[in-house]
Amino acid sequence: MATTINITKRTDTKINNVDFNNLIFGTVFTDHMFYCDYKDGQWQQPQITPYQAMSFDPAARVFHYGQAVFEGMKAYKDEEGKIFLFRPDQNFKRINKSSARLAMPEFPEDFFFEGLTELLKLDSAWIKPGVGNSLYLRPFVIATEPAISASPAKEYRFMIILSPAKAYYAGKVRVLFAEKFSRAANGGVGFAKAAGNYAAQFYPTSLAQKKGYQQVIWTDANSHENLEEAGTMNVFFRINDTLITAPTSDRILDGVTRKSLIQLCDDLNINCEVRNITVSEIKTAAKNGSLKEIFGAGTAAVISPVEAFEHAEELFELPEIENSYGSLLKDSMLKIQHNLAEDKHGWRYEVR
Amino acid sequence: MATTINITKRTDTKINNVDFNNLIFGTVFTDHMFYCDYKDGQWQQPQITPYQAMSFDPAARVFHYGQAVFEGMKAYKDEEGKIFLFRPDQNFKRINKSSARLAMPEFPEDFFFEGLTELLKLDSAWIKPGVGNSLYLRPFVIATEPAISASPAKEYRFMIILSPAKAYYAGKVRVLFAEKFSRAANGGVGFAKAAGNYAAQFYPTSLAQKKGYQQVIWTDANSHENLEEAGTMNVFFRINDTLITAPTSDRILDGVTRKSLIQLCDDLNINCEVRNITVSEIKTAAKNGSLKEIFGAGTAAVISPVEAFEHAEELFELPEIENSYGSLLKDSMLKIQHNLAEDKHGWRYEVR
Repeated sequence: MATTINITKRTDTKINNVDFNNLIFGTVFTDHMFYCDYKDGQWQQPQITPYQAMSFDPAARVFHYGQAVFEGMKAYKDEEGKIFLFRPDQNFKRINKSSARLAMPEFPEDFFFEGLTELLKLDSAWIKPGVGNSLYLRPFVIATEPAISASPAKEYRFMIILSPAKAYYAGKVRVLFAEKFSRAANGGVGFAKAAGNYAAQFYPTSLAQKKGYQQVIWTDANSHENLEEAGTMNVFFRINDTLITAPTSDRILDGVTRKSLIQLCDDLNINCEVRNITVSEIKTAAKNGSLKEIFGAGTAAVISPVEAFEHAEELFELPEIENSYGSLLKDSMLKIQHNLAEDKHGWRYEVR
Repeated sequence: MATTINITKRTDTKINNVDFNNLIFGTVFTDHMFYCDYKDGQWQQPQITPYQAMSFDPAARVFHYGQAVFEGMKAYKDEEGKIFLFRPDQNFKRINKSSARLAMPEFPEDFFFEGLTELLKLDSAWIKPGVGNSLYLRPFVIATEPAISASPAKEYRFMIILSPAKAYYAGKVRVLFAEKFSRAANGGVGFAKAAGNYAAQFYPTSLAQKKGYQQVIWTDANSHENLEEAGTMNVFFRINDTLITAPTSDRILDGVTRKSLIQLCDDLNINCEVRNITVSEIKTAAKNGSLKEIFGAGTAAVISPVEAFEHAEELFELPEIENSYGSLLKDSMLKIQHNLAEDKHGWRYEVR
């Protein structure tokens, strides 16, 4: 692909200092990064440079008003060294949907794909083959204009940084159903990958962690009765042989993994219902033994099986299960992502 | 006051390039800034340096997760050149309340006041005497740790930057009552000056602006029937001779101007009720002529009189009024702030 990107390469590499068997998620970055500034009403010349700190005015609006959106994606390498992305068109559409909700300009499709492609080709050594290995890609957009009136900026920076990853959560997780705190309001920005949605969850999540739960499953702000999402993951519940996940809304993120799993259920003849799920339904199912599985679904973790949940001081341990839908779906997803299975829906995108 | 701050002064000043009669809010900054980094579990040596861009890693969590809070304050100078802040203890308490909600470390009280004092003394020429003139102070805290896992940072920067200001809104404003979009959820972060609360309002506000309204008055996310706040201001409604403002909650900011006005009403024998106000109550009052005034109350604008509001495609123009409570309260506030009236509640804080 011919590129319009201005590329400045590193002359050496940091890769030999990295222990790929002991990666801590999101702390190690590759040799290069992509960025493109928006000013005077348009996106400027895209740049690839060595990964490095950058200079920002203390009045940059992102520091004051959280005008920032991001995406999470992964690149995979097969045994032949081919590099694949998984449904990047979905991330492209969603970052612009998030931007629109925060009054930020949309990023051009050609810059997005060219940026990803050139960056991945330069840093391809950082993508290790083998199921479970991946390179996490973080496109994001921040308001850079130095002006602290509470209104949309006129200047932005779109960036992509890359971080080699193992699975996000190592094992099974214990979760707390939210009873008091909430993540999103009707008419708010819960559906967007808006930066502020995440910081808002840190304190309630830290309280849950003190009680021994890694994640919070958010409920609606109104009644705290409808189970919604886990903040960094959508959530699936299995009652008997039916999977259930909440419909997307202006409170719930339209997850790429979530929608792919719904399609895979169809392919694998697993019954999957998209409907509201209440706390009482899940507690009842847990008590009568019909609740078989709960798992989170997201790019970072693919599938995060839940081993226990708590609500209103009641603890429920989930049973060990043989034919886990979570395991089956994770295995299917990983095989498609790593070019080890047929890609009947055209989800793989080869980077070349 | 003896200082523990490490101070590096500018050798010249930018002040002679500034047109103080034509200031655009939040775009001009003084010669110096204050900052203090948090790492290894504690706040480090505070610094005052020339105002300048700073270097940040692209993975700094503030860029990805909106982990950032701020305050808005003003400094005033009287005719003798004395410098005053208005209830800075309230801003100090609130920034730490905001930080706690976003799982950020609290900032020490002595550093906060020493930082403000030393910075204002250095840049005192930027505070012009005269009612209406002020120096806007922006303390803020951002998550600087370069790590993109969705969890609280271990490193932060507390900063104060200063911007000379005229009144935030020049004239009367036209406002739209929110019918679909919302600002905050129960159990969310609406009460905090969390960065993400502001970006979330930009798009709905831009839609209102296209219709000719400068601001949105937010309603509850549930019913859109309770009038809450204006995003950068609390709101007061006057029906006949009674002022009404919504009670603070986990959705509504506990504004310093709001609470000071409630006290001033008591001092001035104006009846002020703190209670829920519904859209229908205000529309009915507008129709029968008992709605006399609406105004916003906040640090930047002090009082912003509303001249018209729209709800459900119905437009209501407010009457011109002689004994405006908004004008009376604004005048009283400004006199206290500028050391032109008795300070019976000890709100003024002299900087020396």
